[in-house]
Amino acid sequence: MKIIVAKNSGFCFGVKRAMNIVKEVKNNYSDKNIFTLGPIIHNPQVVNSLVEEKVFPVEDLKSLKKDDVLILRTHGIEKEMLSTIKKKRIKYIDATCPFVSNAHKYVKMLYRKGYQVIIFGEKNHPEILSINSQIDRKGIVIEDKDQIKDLIGLKNKKIGIISQTTQSIEKYKEIVTSLMDLFKEIYVINTICNATSLRQNSALALAKKVDLMLVVGGKNSGNTKRLFQICSELNEKTYHIETANEIDDFKDKILTNEVIGIVAGASTPNWIIKDVIEKLKKIDKEENKNGRKN
Amino acid sequence: MKIIVAKNSGFCFGVKRAMNIVKEVKNNYSDKNIFTLGPIIHNPQVVNSLVEEKVFPVEDLKSLKKDDVLILRTHGIEKEMLSTIKKKRIKYIDATCPFVSNAHKYVKMLYRKGYQVIIFGEKNHPEILSINSQIDRKGIVIEDKDQIKDLIGLKNKKIGIISQTTQSIEKYKEIVTSLMDLFKEIYVINTICNATSLRQNSALALAKKVDLMLVVGGKNSGNTKRLFQICSELNEKTYHIETANEIDDFKDKILTNEVIGIVAGASTPNWIIKDVIEKLKKIDKEENKNGRKN
Repeated sequence: MKIIVAKNSGFCFGVKRAMNIVKEVKNNYSDKNIFTLGPIIHNPQVVNSLVEEKVFPVEDLKSLKKDDVLILRTHGIEKEMLSTIKKKRIKYIDATCPFVSNAHKYVKMLYRKGYQVIIFGEKNHPEILSINSQIDRKGIVIEDKDQIKDLIGLKNKKIGIISQTTQSIEKYKEIVTSLMDLFKEIYVINTICNATSLRQNSALALAKKVDLMLVVGGKNSGNTKRLFQICSELNEKTYHIETANEIDDFKDKILTNEVIGIVAGASTPNWIIKDVIEKLKKIDKEENKNGRKN
Repeated sequence: MKIIVAKNSGFCFGVKRAMNIVKEVKNNYSDKNIFTLGPIIHNPQVVNSLVEEKVFPVEDLKSLKKDDVLILRTHGIEKEMLSTIKKKRIKYIDATCPFVSNAHKYVKMLYRKGYQVIIFGEKNHPEILSINSQIDRKGIVIEDKDQIKDLIGLKNKKIGIISQTTQSIEKYKEIVTSLMDLFKEIYVINTICNATSLRQNSALALAKKVDLMLVVGGKNSGNTKRLFQICSELNEKTYHIETANEIDDFKDKILTNEVIGIVAGASTPNWIIKDVIEKLKKIDKEENKNGRKN
């Protein structure tokens, strides 16, 4: 068995930054209760390990007490929620990914300049909710080019489009070219972060040449789901797992003479990637010992 | 033999309008010498028939005398040339296609707003020369997506892109998506005229289902050349002819049981299309008479 890990796998700049912020907050406020507003990143294992370190995710502000410290999630939060936090004078530290903050700036610029804003992304993803809240939800969220036909009524408007930072660049291009059939003026902002594009390209290249592909990351992680989608289009034997243990479910599909590719989402910690590699090596060893070498 | 003429073949709105302008000018100025600045449209046969009606193309203003009347070509003319005409108080009538005039407005808007202007089109085509002259030739003309790599030095600029009105929409889309890899902000103006897109789509659909495809129009006509390119990618037996007589050169390639498709460029007059159909019918009749029916 040969194991190849795709370049640009695992924690991206924004996630690393958020993890460092949590560490700093823990050091600076060791006497306080620390919370994150929603899961700080879309990786249940990381969120659980933070809980063990007494950093708890909360869904709203109700449970917070005076003196508690709140960390804002990487995906950004809705504008009104931030106003409430400020109004209630809750001590907060912002771990919003700078690329998401950048998308906030762009969406406001497009709206201010009078464009009908289109946002390419997952309707209910916290990043999209945070972006669209910046312009009082006046943006139209589309996730698929099939939805463009519904925009026919806006035909004569100038449109401005931005994307969720972790979307597939290829899908974004498809959306833009489909819009060109309908609209005369389109202001395209490519807000997909560089790490996302690089990781997608590495995943693509690897999925093509390996026998089996493992996409490792949160089942709730948008960018990981996209990696799974991209890889499975190229390689039928693609599996999305959150942790090494899940490999047991399709252990019989793994042959010891195979080349296994691994790519991990932007919110997948290194220790999970290492666990996956160890698990694969263990399977390989056992299979060889059992003389089932193919 | 079955002959099918593609929908949307022949004279487009801008060309019809220009032909009507010529007619009106001839009526209103029957006592004057009438000239067109350059060929009024890119169809040598139409230009020749105008010469017979004493409407002469001139390449510059030197040969014009006081009291002569000048018609400006459909493709538009360069800004400085128009200034000179006005300064010299030459009587002129503007037959510039309104879609080209629209592209002039857009290119000025993009430039005024501070975008680095990119123009997708043929470097030396009069339309492109007229468009780029509007912004003192500050636009960068690209004809192929391979040229995008040369723009790397402009990476941090906001770019605005417009297209020659008769370009291939598919190629324009390719250009835009390639630009998305390099630039964060792209203002896309789709200046390709509707008639061009419709004609290209009709040609595409027809080329797929016929045995042999005839693209009829000026050898100097950009939009006809694009029709030829589009059709020949789908149908190996595609020929670009200006007139019916040219069919003799490949008469032996035409079999009487074939389905022949015809598409004509935006500057091809109806009488040339009719000539082509008559010629084909004649070939069919002769072949059948000779008993060479296949």
